[in-house]
Amino acid sequence: MPDTLTAPPARTQVPRRHLTGPNDLDLPLIEQLLEGAAGFERAGSASGPLRGKLLATLFYEPSTRTRFSFEAAMFRLGGQVLSAENAAEASSAAKGESLEDAMRIVSGYADAIVLRHPEVGAVERAARAAEVPVISAGDGAGHHPTQALLDLYTIKKELGRLDHLRIGLAGDLRHGRTARSLALLLSRFPGNELLMISPPELRMGTDVLDQLTGARVDQTDDFRSAMEGLDVLYQTRIQAERFASPDEYERYRGVYVVSVDLMHRLPERAILMHPLPRVGEIDPLVDADPRAAYFRQARNGLWIRMAVLDWAMER
Amino acid sequence: MPDTLTAPPARTQVPRRHLTGPNDLDLPLIEQLLEGAAGFERAGSASGPLRGKLLATLFYEPSTRTRFSFEAAMFRLGGQVLSAENAAEASSAAKGESLEDAMRIVSGYADAIVLRHPEVGAVERAARAAEVPVISAGDGAGHHPTQALLDLYTIKKELGRLDHLRIGLAGDLRHGRTARSLALLLSRFPGNELLMISPPELRMGTDVLDQLTGARVDQTDDFRSAMEGLDVLYQTRIQAERFASPDEYERYRGVYVVSVDLMHRLPERAILMHPLPRVGEIDPLVDADPRAAYFRQARNGLWIRMAVLDWAMER
Amino acid sequence: MPDTLTAPPARTQVPRRHLTGPNDLDLPLIEQLLEGAAGFERAGSASGPLRGKLLATLFYEPSTRTRFSFEAAMFRLGGQVLSAENAAEASSAAKGESLEDAMRIVSGYADAIVLRHPEVGAVERAARAAEVPVISAGDGAGHHPTQALLDLYTIKKELGRLDHLRIGLAGDLRHGRTARSLALLLSRFPGNELLMISPPELRMGTDVLDQLTGARVDQTDDFRSAMEGLDVLYQTRIQAERFASPDEYERYRGVYVVSVDLMHRLPERAILMHPLPRVGEIDPLVDADPRAAYFRQARNGLWIRMAVLDWAMER
Repeated sequence: MPDTLTAPPARTQVPRRHLTGPNDLDLPLIEQLLEGAAGFERAGSASGPLRGKLLATLFYEPSTRTRFSFEAAMFRLGGQVLSAENAAEASSAAKGESLEDAMRIVSGYADAIVLRHPEVGAVERAARAAEVPVISAGDGAGHHPTQALLDLYTIKKELGRLDHLRIGLAGDLRHGRTARSLALLLSRFPGNELLMISPPELRMGTDVLDQLTGARVDQTDDFRSAMEGLDVLYQTRIQAERFASPDEYERYRGVYVVSVDLMHRLPERAILMHPLPRVGEIDPLVDADPRAAYFRQARNGLWIRMAVLDWAMER
Repeated sequence: MPDTLTAPPARTQVPRRHLTGPNDLDLPLIEQLLEGAAGFERAGSASGPLRGKLLATLFYEPSTRTRFSFEAAMFRLGGQVLSAENAAEASSAAKGESLEDAMRIVSGYADAIVLRHPEVGAVERAARAAEVPVISAGDGAGHHPTQALLDLYTIKKELGRLDHLRIGLAGDLRHGRTARSLALLLSRFPGNELLMISPPELRMGTDVLDQLTGARVDQTDDFRSAMEGLDVLYQTRIQAERFASPDEYERYRGVYVVSVDLMHRLPERAILMHPLPRVGEIDPLVDADPRAAYFRQARNGLWIRMAVLDWAMER
Repeated sequence: MPDTLTAPPARTQVPRRHLTGPNDLDLPLIEQLLEGAAGFERAGSASGPLRGKLLATLFYEPSTRTRFSFEAAMFRLGGQVLSAENAAEASSAAKGESLEDAMRIVSGYADAIVLRHPEVGAVERAARAAEVPVISAGDGAGHHPTQALLDLYTIKKELGRLDHLRIGLAGDLRHGRTARSLALLLSRFPGNELLMISPPELRMGTDVLDQLTGARVDQTDDFRSAMEGLDVLYQTRIQAERFASPDEYERYRGVYVVSVDLMHRLPERAILMHPLPRVGEIDPLVDADPRAAYFRQARNGLWIRMAVLDWAMER
C-alpha cells in the first residue's frame, strides 16, 4: 500500500460524520468511541487506518495543547496535517471572509476539519457549509465534545463504570464548556447524580440543565461540604473578570481551591479531574495524591481523538 | 523505496526552476503545467514523486488558504512541509535580517521554498539568493502566478478552451495581483479580448497593459453594461481605503457587486470567477447559480500546485 | 516495517536524554554527536531511525530558522512534527499555566520536546517536569547547546581539529547565549585560547568564565588588534538597547563591524563564523571571501540536530 496521499479529498454521498457538540453523541456512539479509544491505547495503530488522509486543524482561538492532541492522534493513525495555529489573524477571516466560505474552500484541501472558534454555535455553522467532516475543538462558552469524551474515558478507566456515580462539577459552570458538555454526556448513563458546585453568578445555564433529565441534579455553592460522597470532583477555573465586583470575586477565590486539606474531605475511592490548564485552583502539592487524575486525563485525549478521527474519516 | 527524507537538500548545477511571476511562464510551460494538473486531478499521485523531499512555506503575510493549498499539494505528492504561518513576526526578519540571508539559510533545510511577501519584487530577490527553487505565493500588489495558472485551468475545464474568449476582469485592477497575472497569461493565447472593468482610480497599471500585445484590450467603468458578450466575469475586491474620499468609494461600492439581478445580464454560457476571499462583492445568493465557478476554482488550486511543485523539484 | 506512528509515547525507565545546556555535554558525548552528524552528512539516513516517532517543537520565543532546522532534521530521520511557532501567545501559557504543567501534558503526545524559551533556566525546569527528552533551542541569555555543537562541527570540518586553536569571540558576550555555550564546549578540548572581544559593558559573565579552566582566556575591547593570530573569529551582534547611553553605543557600533578591510587583518588560514541572523555587523561584501563560513555553518545545523534527535530518542 502506498503511504503517500494519493486520493483526492473524499466526496461521500452518505451523511458526513460531524462532531459539533453533545447532540451528535448518543449512547451507542459514545460506547463505540470509548471502545475504539481503548483499542488504540492497548494496541496502537499498526495498520495506519488514515494513511493517505489529510486533516486540517483551524484554531480561530489558539490552544497549543488541544491542537497537539488532535495532530498527534492524526499522525499516530498514519495521516498528515495542515495546521493553522492562529487562523483568526492568519486567514482571510481578518479580511472579512465568512466562516462558511472558509469551510467550503478548506474542504477542497483536507479530508476532515478540526475547528476551535470563539463563538458559540460556530462549529455547527461550519459543519453545514463544509463538504468534509467537521470536529469541534471547542466553541466559545458552548461545548467541547471531545473533551467530554476523554473525561468519560478517564472516569471509566479510573473507576470502572460510567453509571450510578456522584460527580461534582465545580467552578465557572456558566462559561465552562467542558463541564457543560460533560454533564450532558453523563446524563445519558443511568443513575448518575450531578452536583453543580458554583457561585450563584456562575451557575450552569438552563439550556444544559433542561436536558439533564436522565440524571439527578443538585446545586450548591458550598465547596467544602460538597466533597462528601463524591466519586468524581471535576474542578474548573473561576475567572475574576466574570464577577460584578472584585469583592464578590474575592469571596469565592480562596474557597474554590483544591488544597491538600480539602483532599482530606474527598472520599478515598474518588478521583480529582480538571480539563487543564489550571492557574491556581488546584495546589501543585495535590499532584502527588494518587487520586489526582488530571495528568492521566490529559494523556487520554490522545486515544479518544484517535477514535474520533478514525470514526469521522473511516469511509 | 524508503519513504523517509533521506537525501540532503539537492544542489543542482542546472538552472533552478523558480516561479516568481508571469515572466517565468511561456506558452509551452503553461501547457505542460495545465496538463500535469489534469493528470493529478484524474489519477492522483500514487507514486509519490516528491517522497523524500521537503518544502518550506514562508508566509511573511499570512494566508491560511494559499498556504494550505500548497501544503496539501506537497503532502499529496508524498513530501513533507516546514511551515511558517507568520514568518514576519516569527523569524529573524523581526530582528532586521535581510530576505537574502533568510533564503540562503532556508536553502540548507528544504528542497524548495514557497514565499508570500508584502513587497513587490521580493520573490524575485529571494530567488536570486536561494539555492533551491522559489515559488511565488504572491508579492504585494505584484503578481500571483500560481493563482493565474489555476484560473487558466478553471477556464479550460469549464469552457473547453483558452483562446478566442471575451474575459471581463473587474474590481481593483491596480492593486489586484491575481487579475494582473491572469491578464498576462491570457494574452499568451490567440484571439482573447480582455475587458478591464474598474473605476478610473483603480485601472490596471501600464506595466501590465504594455505587455498585453497578444490580446485586444478595452477599458470601462460601467459594470452592468460590461456583462454583455462575456465568456468569463472575473470579479475581485474593491477596497474602501484605495479611494481619495468616502464619497468616491460609495459611488462604486454598490455598483461593483455581483447580484442575482446582475447575473441575468451575464450570458448563459459564461462563468463567474473570483480568487476569493470575497467580502461582499458577490452576493451569497449567487452561489446557487451553476455559472458560479469560484468554489470549483478554489479546489483546482490543489491540482495546479501539485503540478508546479512536481515540476520545480522533479530533478 | 510500517511507517505510521504506531506506538504510544515511550515511557523509558532509564534516565531520559535531555540536552538543556553545556553541562549535559562531556567530551565523549560531544565526540559521539560530532561523529553522528558527520555520518548523516555523508550518507543521509536511509533507514529512517525515528520512523514512528513524534517531535514537539515549542517556541515561546519565535525563531523560524532554528525551528526549521530541528524540524527538517526530524523529517530527514523519518519522524513527524508537532509545531508551535508562537507557543507563548497560542498556548495556555497566556492563561497563566506553569511551564511544568505544559511539559507534563505535551509529554503525553510527543516522544521528545524541543524548547525555546525567553527565560534563563527554563529548559532545565522543563526537563525536570517532562516525561520525555527535552532539547534546548536556547533559553534567554542562558545557553544554546545545539548551536555550540554545530559551531564545533563547523570548526572541525573547516580547520581539521578542535584543539590548540586561538578563537576570538566578539560582540555582546554578556547576553549572547551562543558565545557562552561555545566557550564552555571549546574549553573541554586541550590547548585552546579564547580571546573575549567585547566592550567592557558586555563582557562574558563570570558564571561562564569561572568554568573555563581548560582554556587560556584573554579579554580585550580592541576589535582590530584582536584579529592577529586568530584561527576563528566568531562574530555576534551588539544591540543598541544594551548600552547606558546612545553615545556609548555609537562608540562601539562602527568598530565591531567585520568589513572587507578588517578581513585583511584576519590570517589567511582563519575562518569567520556567525550564528546568524546578522543585522549589519558583517558587511555583505565579505560573503565572497572564502573564509566567510557562516552560511556553511548554518547548513551544518541540520546534521548536528539529526545527531542530537537520534541520540535523544534512539531507545
